[in-house]
Amino acid sequence: MAGMDSAATPATPAAPSSGPGTVWAHVGQPFTPRDYDVVVLGAGRMGAAVALYLRQLAPHLSLLLLEEGGLPNEDGATLLAPGVWTAWGLPEDRMAQARWTRSQLETAFGDIRFQTRPLIELFMEGGTGRTPAADALAPYPDAQALVDTVALPFARVDAGAATYRPGALALAAAQQAVRAGADLMLNARARAALPADGSLHRAEPDGTGARVVIERLSVTNTHQIIVHDTHRLRAGVVVLALGADGPHAAEHDLGQHTTHARAYRQAPRLNVSSGDDTPVLRAAGLTLRPQNGGFTLVPAVHHRDPHGYVPTGGRLTGVPTGLRRETLEELVALMDALPPLGTEALGLGRSISDVPGAWLALPGGRADGLPLHQTLATGIHLLLGGPHADTLGLAVAHDLAAALAGLRGRPWDSPPPAPR
Amino acid sequence: MAGMDSAATPATPAAPSSGPGTVWAHVGQPFTPRDYDVVVLGAGRMGAAVALYLRQLAPHLSLLLLEEGGLPNEDGATLLAPGVWTAWGLPEDRMAQARWTRSQLETAFGDIRFQTRPLIELFMEGGTGRTPAADALAPYPDAQALVDTVALPFARVDAGAATYRPGALALAAAQQAVRAGADLMLNARARAALPADGSLHRAEPDGTGARVVIERLSVTNTHQIIVHDTHRLRAGVVVLALGADGPHAAEHDLGQHTTHARAYRQAPRLNVSSGDDTPVLRAAGLTLRPQNGGFTLVPAVHHRDPHGYVPTGGRLTGVPTGLRRETLEELVALMDALPPLGTEALGLGRSISDVPGAWLALPGGRADGLPLHQTLATGIHLLLGGPHADTLGLAVAHDLAAALAGLRGRPWDSPPPAPR
Repeated sequence: MAGMDSAATPATPAAPSSGPGTVWAHVGQPFTPRDYDVVVLGAGRMGAAVALYLRQLAPHLSLLLLEEGGLPNEDGATLLAPGVWTAWGLPEDRMAQARWTRSQLETAFGDIRFQTRPLIELFMEGGTGRTPAADALAPYPDAQALVDTVALPFARVDAGAATYRPGALALAAAQQAVRAGADLMLNARARAALPADGSLHRAEPDGTGARVVIERLSVTNTHQIIVHDTHRLRAGVVVLALGADGPHAAEHDLGQHTTHARAYRQAPRLNVSSGDDTPVLRAAGLTLRPQNGGFTLVPAVHHRDPHGYVPTGGRLTGVPTGLRRETLEELVALMDALPPLGTEALGLGRSISDVPGAWLALPGGRADGLPLHQTLATGIHLLLGGPHADTLGLAVAHDLAAALAGLRGRPWDSPPPAPR
Repeated sequence: MAGMDSAATPATPAAPSSGPGTVWAHVGQPFTPRDYDVVVLGAGRMGAAVALYLRQLAPHLSLLLLEEGGLPNEDGATLLAPGVWTAWGLPEDRMAQARWTRSQLETAFGDIRFQTRPLIELFMEGGTGRTPAADALAPYPDAQALVDTVALPFARVDAGAATYRPGALALAAAQQAVRAGADLMLNARARAALPADGSLHRAEPDGTGARVVIERLSVTNTHQIIVHDTHRLRAGVVVLALGADGPHAAEHDLGQHTTHARAYRQAPRLNVSSGDDTPVLRAAGLTLRPQNGGFTLVPAVHHRDPHGYVPTGGRLTGVPTGLRRETLEELVALMDALPPLGTEALGLGRSISDVPGAWLALPGGRADGLPLHQTLATGIHLLLGGPHADTLGLAVAHDLAAALAGLRGRPWDSPPPAPR
């Protein structure tokens, strides 16, 4: 098996990239459709990363990155992701990918606010590897002020955790991809379509795996989003990197049923002081992520939401709030242990639109599903981030790019064992 | 602790019940409110059973049983419950209650179609206690015809399982309660309300724990349900036996937040021949319950549905069905192993109203929550059945009745250990 060196060398001789790609940000910029070797749908962190890695690993492949909104999409999961890298909860055989992702986050994307920051998980009960919470929190007055250590007397610490901004990562990856020759179109809703004769599963000699239909969007004076014009082009390879919408697109546009699901996660704000040294806290599945001088609360995802669910604000003692009921219940249950949750510092809102939230993909339908890519049909790939994208997303995007480039080795591979 | 004998003897001297109670089936029958010692809201199997056991254990307590619909309610969980008694999945310390429930089902309620019937669970993989599926199914041609034993080659058998009709049980229990002196009002929507001064937590010397507001319902010529008249009365004790609506009532009417949740379960029909000897089958959580010459399919409940969820039919290859998406996916995944699921024999329907379904209470918010009763406030009790009500429901209803009667022993108690 090839080692690290081969990852930088395309399988076929490459025409070197000639300068940056073209960016179409709005419908005022004319677009003449052409065919591409690769079209990536979605410029969240997963789509932007696979685009960048493809430009690095296979610069001979022309590439178009399409995004329905801006960079990153304000409705997508990337912007709301906690941005907490931690090895906790990963299976051992994904640790090398996690470490590689961490080194990329640290070095490859400029200022995405990467910083090591301990993650302290708090418990009601003691156990292996748990220490007194008061000791663990002692160096961090901001964190201490949040926690009632009588209610949560035990802690374990991940000193190797780190935080960063997934939105900044997506933006940096997309910009680097463009500098490396990728074309990028924003405000473009796109879908993959099977070739007209439907013979998608037949390997096509000319390598044109799919058609892509692009609707360029604009906004009217009355703030309605309309389709300005529609284009069609052919792509040798299509990557669906549409986050929680990917499985729906696979089924609706390509007739490929998958086992993936989604959940709606809200990230309310807790306006309690935090700084660059404040650790990330976790209790009963709730993550408190220091951000912008306060905290962003990231509730646990327990399971998929059912098909047809429309997020709705719940009521707290009769008063409408912007938090979905299930999240509200979890915060209420923690109010004794984390007293600021019971104060005005918690941004409850009045309706669902008051609290930031996004649909999160659940790979394999599981709340602990790991990022993955999957071949839906010849030349059409689904790429999913999900709950562990903070820790593993870049490696999985790189893995897909390397596979599309025809490479066998991966940069996180161990050296092959010596022959015996 | 008192033994079995004391369970039959009320703690306070009883005025013996004098003949059957009064039944108000429709608004044409005049009702003059009076106070009751006990009012039970909901005449599903849990409410009907607690009413009957109260008449047996505490005949000195006057009792009114209220039901919003008929007997049993067509929208409730009782009528759709599988009616499969099995000790599988129960904690050891509830086995005595389960056995007592089984003996009650067998002997105490007349013809509720109780019959022993093996439960055969099928697996893809072998394991402890599993035998070849072909052998387990050999005596049962109807069941054999359902299963591809190449896909599901292993089985385990609960030879002690039994089936019965929960709807018939609820009806029999309510009728027996009336014969034993309980009053019963149908088509009566009721809610508990705190005493006007709000001092519910104060033990009230006269024992009047709550007010009950009753709206008697009738149906107009245009099939609209309207409130015909409203009554108020006082009750010493109120039991909320409202199934999945109980926790909402506790919160909305009494301000008592609970941890309970609910899930919407559909029970589609599989029109494949079955008889009295056909075993109950189970595979990947799906229970196939022989009923009326065919099978009723009872999907597993995996977790709560979110607040605000409105059940919707899913689509199968673009065609609308009456099954919710999550259930549809599970049936599709089993079509190879249970081939009749892939045929017209499966009643998919065209919209959600085509497939029978009901909201199921999840005690403690858990899909495996056991039946329970819980004191919400002095004199107000919540009684929940949920997924294991088939096996444990009667014992839990009896336990509440015995507690309200002031009894300490329970009929399933072991004899006290000999003193040493």
